[in-house]
Amino acid sequence: MDMTKIAICAPASPITPDVAEATQALVAAEFPMHSVHFHDQCFERAGHFAGDDLRRLTAFLECSNDPAFEAVWFARGGYGSNRIAQAAIARVNEAARAKTYVGFSDCGYIMGALYKAGVGQCAHGSMPVNARSPDGHDAVRRVLRWFAGDNSGVEPSIDGGTPTAAFNLITLGMMAPTGLMPDLTDHVLMVEEVSEHLYAVDRIFFSLSGSLPRLKGLRLGDVSDVPENDHPFGTQLEDIAKFWCARAGIPYLGRAQIGHTPSNTVVPFGLASPFKRS
Amino acid sequence: MDMTKIAICAPASPITPDVAEATQALVAAEFPMHSVHFHDQCFERAGHFAGDDLRRLTAFLECSNDPAFEAVWFARGGYGSNRIAQAAIARVNEAARAKTYVGFSDCGYIMGALYKAGVGQCAHGSMPVNARSPDGHDAVRRVLRWFAGDNSGVEPSIDGGTPTAAFNLITLGMMAPTGLMPDLTDHVLMVEEVSEHLYAVDRIFFSLSGSLPRLKGLRLGDVSDVPENDHPFGTQLEDIAKFWCARAGIPYLGRAQIGHTPSNTVVPFGLASPFKRS
Repeated sequence: MDMTKIAICAPASPITPDVAEATQALVAAEFPMHSVHFHDQCFERAGHFAGDDLRRLTAFLECSNDPAFEAVWFARGGYGSNRIAQAAIARVNEAARAKTYVGFSDCGYIMGALYKAGVGQCAHGSMPVNARSPDGHDAVRRVLRWFAGDNSGVEPSIDGGTPTAAFNLITLGMMAPTGLMPDLTDHVLMVEEVSEHLYAVDRIFFSLSGSLPRLKGLRLGDVSDVPENDHPFGTQLEDIAKFWCARAGIPYLGRAQIGHTPSNTVVPFGLASPFKRS
Repeated sequence: MDMTKIAICAPASPITPDVAEATQALVAAEFPMHSVHFHDQCFERAGHFAGDDLRRLTAFLECSNDPAFEAVWFARGGYGSNRIAQAAIARVNEAARAKTYVGFSDCGYIMGALYKAGVGQCAHGSMPVNARSPDGHDAVRRVLRWFAGDNSGVEPSIDGGTPTAAFNLITLGMMAPTGLMPDLTDHVLMVEEVSEHLYAVDRIFFSLSGSLPRLKGLRLGDVSDVPENDHPFGTQLEDIAKFWCARAGIPYLGRAQIGHTPSNTVVPFGLASPFKRS
């Protein structure tokens, strides 16, 4: 089993110390080959954010640019990685270019920017915050196994022959018209959402259908915790995805096992490859 | 006082008959020079929508393409005008090109598409749904006065010399990467929002800052009914707008009197001009 030195920072919202303790305990008990290092910045708070923009940027760069670490794991989503992503790309060094970056949800902004810039190997995957509840442990284990060279937690439809990326829907929709957006031409794109009304999901698909390039296809992940509306939307979730894929000329390929749920899997960006160390 | 024959349809979500009765009563009592005609489609429901896409499109075209009417007033927002806007533009006739279109919120999609295509005179303004409550009557009166050639309800900062447009923030953000988006170069852009967290407002500004053209400036309208968050966002509303304007190189011009509130005013799109009839 490969061992991996993992640095953890929080480019969006902060975690509490119990999250770090739960992650450390899981790693010590089941993945003793790994080491996880939580940057102090993870626990700081400035309003919605884990420190102000400069603090979050600096912590990201201290983790990414340090050759002592092989991977950067984002502590949690929330909101805020979009605000530092452009500056982060401008300041990564050679050590950062050799790293693996794992996270999802709001961290899709910084991962999208890293992927666009060809910096390191990004992967959609669960985060330390998911270790807080026993339900999330399996999702975290999939990432820790992947760090160890074990692909059993990779999204099952990934065939290794088609470039893939995975994003939260609103994150992708908001990023689409900005300079952070990577070129997803000929990719299989997997999308997931949480806590959005079905009309908002429809609205994001509308927006994306106007800007996505020619995809190999789209897979729909979990859309969880959909709030009740005053009237039912009238179209089932999967039919929303099918409708907009048809309208945009994108092959709809079925479901993906990703989302804000315990069944969330690992989606390496680009051509799927096991996490490799020297 | 000018009289105006106004057709009302619902390109997004439906209204109930009491909305039509309240509007008719207000017009009869205070604006007897106008006539308002509610299309039956306004009261129909298909899930979230006021009828399915084809029904809403057809009603819009029956109102717009009928030379007997001088204006089309959108009954309410909600969600759905984005789904029919492209087809609507493809099918408008000469009568539609001579009309005035008034609405806001979700109706920004179809108004954006009309403005892009140079069809008629669009104006941001309150809608019949706002006549449901006594609080909204003043906002509706501003529109009805504008239909009568009285500009007293036009947004006070409009100087008549600079092209202007007004949009709901999430509507504009979702429309930005699509083919519906009008060219707002050198416009004063006014934006408003309702029922979104401050982090979501920040996120939309981030997205727009990546795609807006060179504006004459931006004005911030009301951002109302902001939900409580688990932590305060940490930046005041107007500072969010100022931050992103500075980052995008857009002059921030101050507040605008628009929004989902009783003080909502009329913003004619383009170069401000009184509503003119032959």
